[in-house]
Amino acid sequence: MASSSSSSSPTCLRIGIIGFGTFAQFLARTMLKQGHVVVATSRSDHSDLSSRMGVKFYRSIGDMFSETDRIDVVLLSMSILSMADVVRSLPFDRLGRSGDLPLFVDVLSVKEYPRDLLLQVLPEEADILCTHPMFGPESGREGWKGLPLVYERVRIRNQNICQKYLQIFETEDCRMVELSCEEHDKMAAKSQFITHTIGRVLSEMDIKSTPMDTKGFQTLLQLRDNTTKDSFDLYRGLYQHNRFAKEELEKLELAIRTVREKLLDVPNGKEHS
Amino acid sequence: MASSSSSSSPTCLRIGIIGFGTFAQFLARTMLKQGHVVVATSRSDHSDLSSRMGVKFYRSIGDMFSETDRIDVVLLSMSILSMADVVRSLPFDRLGRSGDLPLFVDVLSVKEYPRDLLLQVLPEEADILCTHPMFGPESGREGWKGLPLVYERVRIRNQNICQKYLQIFETEDCRMVELSCEEHDKMAAKSQFITHTIGRVLSEMDIKSTPMDTKGFQTLLQLRDNTTKDSFDLYRGLYQHNRFAKEELEKLELAIRTVREKLLDVPNGKEHS
Ligand SMILES: NC(=O)c1ccc[n+]([C@@H]2O[C@H](COP(=O)([O-])OP(=O)(O)OC[C@H]3O[C@@H](n4cnc5c(N)ncnc54)[C@H](OP(=O)(O)O)[C@@H]3O)[C@@H](O)[C@H]2O)c1
Ligand SMILES: NC(=O)c1ccc[n+]([C@@H]2O[C@H](COP(=O)([O-])OP(=O)(O)OC[C@H]3O[C@@H](n4cnc5c(N)ncnc54)[C@H](OP(=O)(O)O)[C@@H]3O)[C@@H](O)[C@H]2O)c1
Repeated sequence: MASSSSSSSPTCLRIGIIGFGTFAQFLARTMLKQGHVVVATSRSDHSDLSSRMGVKFYRSIGDMFSETDRIDVVLLSMSILSMADVVRSLPFDRLGRSGDLPLFVDVLSVKEYPRDLLLQVLPEEADILCTHPMFGPESGREGWKGLPLVYERVRIRNQNICQKYLQIFETEDCRMVELSCEEHDKMAAKSQFITHTIGRVLSEMDIKSTPMDTKGFQTLLQLRDNTTKDSFDLYRGLYQHNRFAKEELEKLELAIRTVREKLLDVPNGKEHS
Repeated sequence: MASSSSSSSPTCLRIGIIGFGTFAQFLARTMLKQGHVVVATSRSDHSDLSSRMGVKFYRSIGDMFSETDRIDVVLLSMSILSMADVVRSLPFDRLGRSGDLPLFVDVLSVKEYPRDLLLQVLPEEADILCTHPMFGPESGREGWKGLPLVYERVRIRNQNICQKYLQIFETEDCRMVELSCEEHDKMAAKSQFITHTIGRVLSEMDIKSTPMDTKGFQTLLQLRDNTTKDSFDLYRGLYQHNRFAKEELEKLELAIRTVREKLLDVPNGKEHS
């Protein structure tokens, strides 16, 4: 299966994943289900899991690009923090003939950073699609219906391949949200980054279920559990590579000080006895 | 209906509510549905709503206790911050004959504070049941099944009336959690107070829905909305009258500092470019 070529079917893509961690494995399952061919490479050896899934696993990026079968889409799914090193180490002489290069797609949870990096490092002839599926193995467990796929067509000349790739998410009934990388990062700092921060803060506090949990507290326990299933590298990436995150963290700290002041503000001049 | 006496039915109670705000109205609906008689008094005039509900409303506490029909249960549902003033102003000469006083029940979201206050202010012959329904108009909208009713029988001699009152919650399939007021306050500071604090902090930050909300962020928006439906007085009471809350707020602030430090901690000595 892994050796069949995308040219055999007009809608079937041959997707080469770099960074085959939790999130890439989660995406690959749906891609395989839809009939695409998935090959992968990663820092660590994921060959056992890969062969069980039906994914051909290569021990190095060089090996993956040495195969005779053409890769239509290179899917970059490494941690945010490792992307620069990985992308800079790509075997540029083996990516494909100029004019017939694969489409480069990233799935990083920040978007200006990979856009800039890919524009800077990839050959000018390579097409670039920056995407962020706003869901993961937990929130997308029951399917992807209605969940947002944010994307920007950063540099697309081969509309056909790009459309086929986006079709993967359309087929699953994702909400397709075309947004600039900048808009993504602004909104993500105010929403996803704050959500992760609260999950991490709750995890530092070591909160736990009691015999008298309110429903609100139960949702916080759930949030804490879902957040800490993601790696701390992912969270750190959200902060270090989204230029809007710092300000939102400061707003959060300010909001806590404001709430504290309001709490201490004793109404009617009455003191707690 | 409001003039019928509890003596007409062995399980029907005549409940006199002091503090007929949002939460008391919510409780009263279920009490009425179960066939109990509810009368009420409050600082503000709630007579229109009361008469629509089938609750006899008195403009003063004195008036409520001047009726000939005996009140079996006095339900205290004023804000935490106003309780001391209200309880100290009770017409002690009109509460009932010694040996035949009503059962005093409070529903405050803190428990040591009303326990101490009621023990200090009420006649020694009055029975006291301290309760905290761990739900409200939002979380209890679809019924009370499985939701916790925390209580301590602080001073109960008339087991019969106390049992009939608790039966209201058992009938609705609440989870009955008998806990000391101290245990309640310890756990509530770590759970409910932190939940309210996060809701208040989010509300200070003015977070809003985006076209790309993750599920986690949506639960935070929901939490913010539910928290701010409660009065700020309620939240302030959770802090000012629960001696364990201060430490939990400090832990929250410390946890944020810890998370911030971990965020700034650049792994492998690599700097964000
Ligand atoms: N988890 C989610 O729900 C989610 C949702 C949307 C987008 N994303 C994005 O998807 C990407 C992957 O996320 P993830 O959840 O799988 O976890 P992650 O911790 O962000 O990334 C793990 C992946 O990065 C690779 N990696 C880590 N350090 C590396 C290094 N120094 N050199 C080379 N590769 C390295 C790992 O390789 P090995 O496994 O081989 O060690 C693994 O494939 C991230 O960019 C993340 O922002 C995640
Ligand atoms: N909301 C919930 O989900 C919930 C759940 C469990 C327990 N509780 C507890 O139930 C009690 C009532 O809560 P709530 O949600 O209705 O809101 P609240 O703001 O805590 O209390 C409002 C009630 O307090 C009365 N009140 C406020 N200030 C007063 C004053 N200076 N003098 C006399 N009465 C005063 C109000 O009277 P008027 O309406 O007449 O102005 C109203 O009846 C609180 O002790 C709260 O901790 C609430």
